[in-house]
Amino acid sequence: MTDYQTNLRVKLPATCIILEIIIIILFGTLVEYDHDTDANLWHEEMAKHNKSNYQNEFYFRYPSFQDVHVMIFIGFGFLMTFLQRYGFSSVGFNFLIAAFSLQLATLMQGFFHGMHGGKIHVGIESMINADFCTGSVLISFGAVLGKTSPVQLLLMAVFEVTLFAINEFIVLSVLGAKDAGGSMTIHTFGAYFGLAVARVLYRPHLDKSKDKNSSVYHSDLFAMIGTIYLWMFWPSFNSAVTAHGDDQHRTAMNTYYSLAACTLATYGFSALVSHEGKLDMVHIQNAALAGGVAVGTAGEMMLTPYGSMIVGFLAGTISTLGFKYLSPLLESKLRIQDTCGVHNLHGMPGVLGAIVGAITAAAATEEIYGAGLDDVFPDIYSKQITASNQGVRQAISLVVTLGIALLGGVIVGFILKLPIYGSPPDTICFEDEIYWEVPGEEGTHEEMTILPVVDVEKPLNG
Amino acid sequence: MTDYQTNLRVKLPATCIILEIIIIILFGTLVEYDHDTDANLWHEEMAKHNKSNYQNEFYFRYPSFQDVHVMIFIGFGFLMTFLQRYGFSSVGFNFLIAAFSLQLATLMQGFFHGMHGGKIHVGIESMINADFCTGSVLISFGAVLGKTSPVQLLLMAVFEVTLFAINEFIVLSVLGAKDAGGSMTIHTFGAYFGLAVARVLYRPHLDKSKDKNSSVYHSDLFAMIGTIYLWMFWPSFNSAVTAHGDDQHRTAMNTYYSLAACTLATYGFSALVSHEGKLDMVHIQNAALAGGVAVGTAGEMMLTPYGSMIVGFLAGTISTLGFKYLSPLLESKLRIQDTCGVHNLHGMPGVLGAIVGAITAAAATEEIYGAGLDDVFPDIYSKQITASNQGVRQAISLVVTLGIALLGGVIVGFILKLPIYGSPPDTICFEDEIYWEVPGEEGTHEEMTILPVVDVEKPLNG
Amino acid sequence: MTDYQTNLRVKLPATCIILEIIIIILFGTLVEYDHDTDANLWHEEMAKHNKSNYQNEFYFRYPSFQDVHVMIFIGFGFLMTFLQRYGFSSVGFNFLIAAFSLQLATLMQGFFHGMHGGKIHVGIESMINADFCTGSVLISFGAVLGKTSPVQLLLMAVFEVTLFAINEFIVLSVLGAKDAGGSMTIHTFGAYFGLAVARVLYRPHLDKSKDKNSSVYHSDLFAMIGTIYLWMFWPSFNSAVTAHGDDQHRTAMNTYYSLAACTLATYGFSALVSHEGKLDMVHIQNAALAGGVAVGTAGEMMLTPYGSMIVGFLAGTISTLGFKYLSPLLESKLRIQDTCGVHNLHGMPGVLGAIVGAITAAAATEEIYGAGLDDVFPDIYSKQITASNQGVRQAISLVVTLGIALLGGVIVGFILKLPIYGSPPDTICFEDEIYWEVPGEEGTHEEMTILPVVDVEKPLNG
Repeated sequence: MTDYQTNLRVKLPATCIILEIIIIILFGTLVEYDHDTDANLWHEEMAKHNKSNYQNEFYFRYPSFQDVHVMIFIGFGFLMTFLQRYGFSSVGFNFLIAAFSLQLATLMQGFFHGMHGGKIHVGIESMINADFCTGSVLISFGAVLGKTSPVQLLLMAVFEVTLFAINEFIVLSVLGAKDAGGSMTIHTFGAYFGLAVARVLYRPHLDKSKDKNSSVYHSDLFAMIGTIYLWMFWPSFNSAVTAHGDDQHRTAMNTYYSLAACTLATYGFSALVSHEGKLDMVHIQNAALAGGVAVGTAGEMMLTPYGSMIVGFLAGTISTLGFKYLSPLLESKLRIQDTCGVHNLHGMPGVLGAIVGAITAAAATEEIYGAGLDDVFPDIYSKQITASNQGVRQAISLVVTLGIALLGGVIVGFILKLPIYGSPPDTICFEDEIYWEVPGEEGTHEEMTILPVVDVEKPLNG
Repeated sequence: MTDYQTNLRVKLPATCIILEIIIIILFGTLVEYDHDTDANLWHEEMAKHNKSNYQNEFYFRYPSFQDVHVMIFIGFGFLMTFLQRYGFSSVGFNFLIAAFSLQLATLMQGFFHGMHGGKIHVGIESMINADFCTGSVLISFGAVLGKTSPVQLLLMAVFEVTLFAINEFIVLSVLGAKDAGGSMTIHTFGAYFGLAVARVLYRPHLDKSKDKNSSVYHSDLFAMIGTIYLWMFWPSFNSAVTAHGDDQHRTAMNTYYSLAACTLATYGFSALVSHEGKLDMVHIQNAALAGGVAVGTAGEMMLTPYGSMIVGFLAGTISTLGFKYLSPLLESKLRIQDTCGVHNLHGMPGVLGAIVGAITAAAATEEIYGAGLDDVFPDIYSKQITASNQGVRQAISLVVTLGIALLGGVIVGFILKLPIYGSPPDTICFEDEIYWEVPGEEGTHEEMTILPVVDVEKPLNG
Repeated sequence: MTDYQTNLRVKLPATCIILEIIIIILFGTLVEYDHDTDANLWHEEMAKHNKSNYQNEFYFRYPSFQDVHVMIFIGFGFLMTFLQRYGFSSVGFNFLIAAFSLQLATLMQGFFHGMHGGKIHVGIESMINADFCTGSVLISFGAVLGKTSPVQLLLMAVFEVTLFAINEFIVLSVLGAKDAGGSMTIHTFGAYFGLAVARVLYRPHLDKSKDKNSSVYHSDLFAMIGTIYLWMFWPSFNSAVTAHGDDQHRTAMNTYYSLAACTLATYGFSALVSHEGKLDMVHIQNAALAGGVAVGTAGEMMLTPYGSMIVGFLAGTISTLGFKYLSPLLESKLRIQDTCGVHNLHGMPGVLGAIVGAITAAAATEEIYGAGLDDVFPDIYSKQITASNQGVRQAISLVVTLGIALLGGVIVGFILKLPIYGSPPDTICFEDEIYWEVPGEEGTHEEMTILPVVDVEKPLNG
């Protein structure tokens, strides 16, 4: 174990504190309240434009923001607690890298989208966008879960947030694609970036930890907390930054229908392909969410309720089948050890969502959208481009996203492979004890940590 | 066990997939965006009526919808995880039948309430109403928990959603009763329907599974997650579809006071009637919620804060006493095996709520409500009927609801009794293993289900 | 054990039921719907002032209220479940005393702030304020967790709510300080009140229960549910009662940044000071929240994003170091047994928040705030006082709060010390079994539950 210096007493504090100080300095230099959060500017704006307080952006978006926030911290955090001895790390590292990423994302996204006179303006929209970028990092975290140190994860976040912001800028601003719920920018990007990193960090002897790479009864219940919160609040996620009014309303509803149909498909196919017709918690915890991913692009469009359901049904199906048939191949053939199966939950459904988005965009007409076309496809509304052009923009965006994610992930993977970040040895992956003080270890009652029935009865009966 | 073919490899996929395809076809034929979700229609409406985006129904109701959504998926789902070995099924089947029911409810409620030119219009209100109907199905699920297969549950949902929509139509549209929080339409209906089904499905030899029909320490904590979420968000539940402005505001507040008083009553009576003056988790998990049920009808009325508290106090009292004294009699005398005690949480408090609603309605005057009378009792405001008439409407609605629920439940019970749905044998009720791949069963570490790593490895290495 | 009559069959029911009846009578005599909840008054107000329903206070504050509600019941409740055998009590007593305190707080705060013609007016603001006051009681609960009976806790709540309302009245109304998120009125008050009570209730032989005064693996995960909810919704807490528009918006955002920076500091310092550089769950569960406490006063001011981050960083640092170095001293030197370490999470960060608030207030200028100065510092805006005066007001308020909290806590501590409330003996502190029917005790599977310490030790010692 001499190759693995996992004691983080110096590395982790140094990383956290230095990163935070750099961020505070950059915020001090570059960041300002926007027009809706600055006391002076907002009151000027109310006076000038005869606005009322209820028109402050806060009331349009804060409830959605809080739902997204729950998805990021509870949803992703608890979804990953399914491992039997990795609950502290799942929730805890999720917490750490999310709290870090949202700060860096504010800066990076600000550089590309929010500069006003040399300053980054922040408000509720920047908060939501930062949480979105964070979601992408957490997806990648899912691919490398259990095999990385918190220092590695923070470093991955530094690079991934940066690349996310660049890709988002290209897709949304340069190419002019629409992707409000992030099928491409968040899910496809996060999944393929994470898979590329996992490929580079491939551990041929990971089976030494395989007894810990599985769930126990209670850990699966904790994970369901994550799943259900992600499922319930996905309508808020996809609609959080769409235009006011019908757009937010429609996006939320489309997502709701997609997820409902996805859930039925997941249960159906899970029982169909599992051992003895029994349901598999892995499918329920993950594939039932694919419907949210798959309407991340088209959700704000006039996808129709039944259209949303078809997309959700397809997403649940491919995701469940992916867990059953594709994940084992990814590991054995492509040497990608995808701990949480993010390829099935975010990867394939993200690509499906991008394709659905391109098709739905290409089918847009002024007849269907009326004056609302301006909100969804301003360039079509202003006759700059045709609907088909928009479809092409969407398709190109998918390709660009895949390219940046895969290439970026490989490069970052090699950076993370340097043996200086305290990553765990093959024999102690998926184990909290390596980075956490786990209760019972030093006390007098270590055997208490939830004692099994059998072991106790034996001495009593003996 | 030959009578019990519990392998669902064909039955469950077939049921899920066929039901979902039928629903998608019906949605494709019948369902359209409403005026607040359709891009074209909303922009027309804004132009015609000089409306602004903040007047979109989304902003009045979406936060309440999300709270209701949490109650349905987390609240009901985790409330039922109290059983020691039925957590996967409690959360998982709750998830499945809720995701299905909300889709079917949209169609069924649409047939009766929301047809516009041959089309069902959907938006945030239909989403909330669909969740409400789903709540009713989940209440019935509570009565048969642990003794039914998912195929049976889906079939029960098909019938119950239909009957719910019919009863709701009779109560609200034909009889003109008010029941915004569903004391009658949701709670009374769901409880007595479920109890009737449970009566028909009575298992004389259920005591063969009695060792599993109880909680363990951690399962009770998981259940408290469900309880607390239901308790916190009940104000949103009761106010989700009331009129804008003071009505939503007042309903939420009345519910909040009722629940607070109910909680004190529950703790008091729990300690009074329990063994050695100790508190009983069953009471806390359930009876503390009865205050929300009992103001489901009168919550939107001018019940006054202290009136709400009196109702809540009574509800907590009868609910706690019901668990202690009535539930054992229901099982021994009436042969109703009510797993979750829905009679105590939803049945009696629902009836109480209906009665309180009738009395409060009969006491309505224009002096008290002012112009607000139009929102709460439009027929009294327009002098079509007197307040006493409204009280009578409310009372008749309770009787109708009880009749449809009980009769419907008995009939559906007999349909569900056919031995073709893969229901569990008496010896393996309240057990996840029958329908789920439970971790540890087939791996090398079955004793691990909660065993610490070290203890297991020792004997292996020894 | 004769000195400890812990059977509560009479005491707890009597306390709950009598208190609730008194409250109902007082509500019946004193409490009325306010202008936004009363049907008649709201419709009059709409007619008179040409208001619309979307201007009802409900839509500005209800989402924030629900977030605060989650913090009170899930956040505080689950945060305290970290103890291995005190989960029922942590969530359950939290539930009981919160449900009681919010009712009493409505009355007490109403006496001091909300009387209109001899009546207390209630609406969404009174609901939020009542939850705030409840939060203070729950902080004190954290200091005495595991060592008190529910009767004692209810009695403590009676006194603490009263003193809270008095202190709040002095600080906000008499002294004219600002403290929207309650760094002083909620956190400093609750912490030092609780510490004073804990000092008086000091148990020299508490080490007899020390094997139960620690966590186990799963209890730490339950506690993380509480932590994460508190962390996520703290922006809503601090902004719930600030002025509409930019004020709510800015307060939420400042809190969000403070918490993010605090989290990085907490992880960094936890690894730095813990055994072998491992992270300590106690720090993560608690210190990561100190950033919310520390911007409770200044959050609504123009603190700037980087200013918020600096405050959060400091708060996380002192809180983590407090857990490591100060808590042991508090117990050994000052004889304060602070079960949850509320001094580190609420005490010191609350004082820090008060100081930051005083400094930020003293730096306020019309140039920075513009017309928004009227919302934040009306007395400075109207030139009644200077910004420096406001800073002095803030500083005096801190001193007053500390004084009332400490003095009140000592007196209430002596009242609670009377041996008539059924508090647990030293040997059975931190143990649910004393007040709850714990599953498995009487069933056939008692050994299943997660076995008690004693049973395990027998074979080892035998």
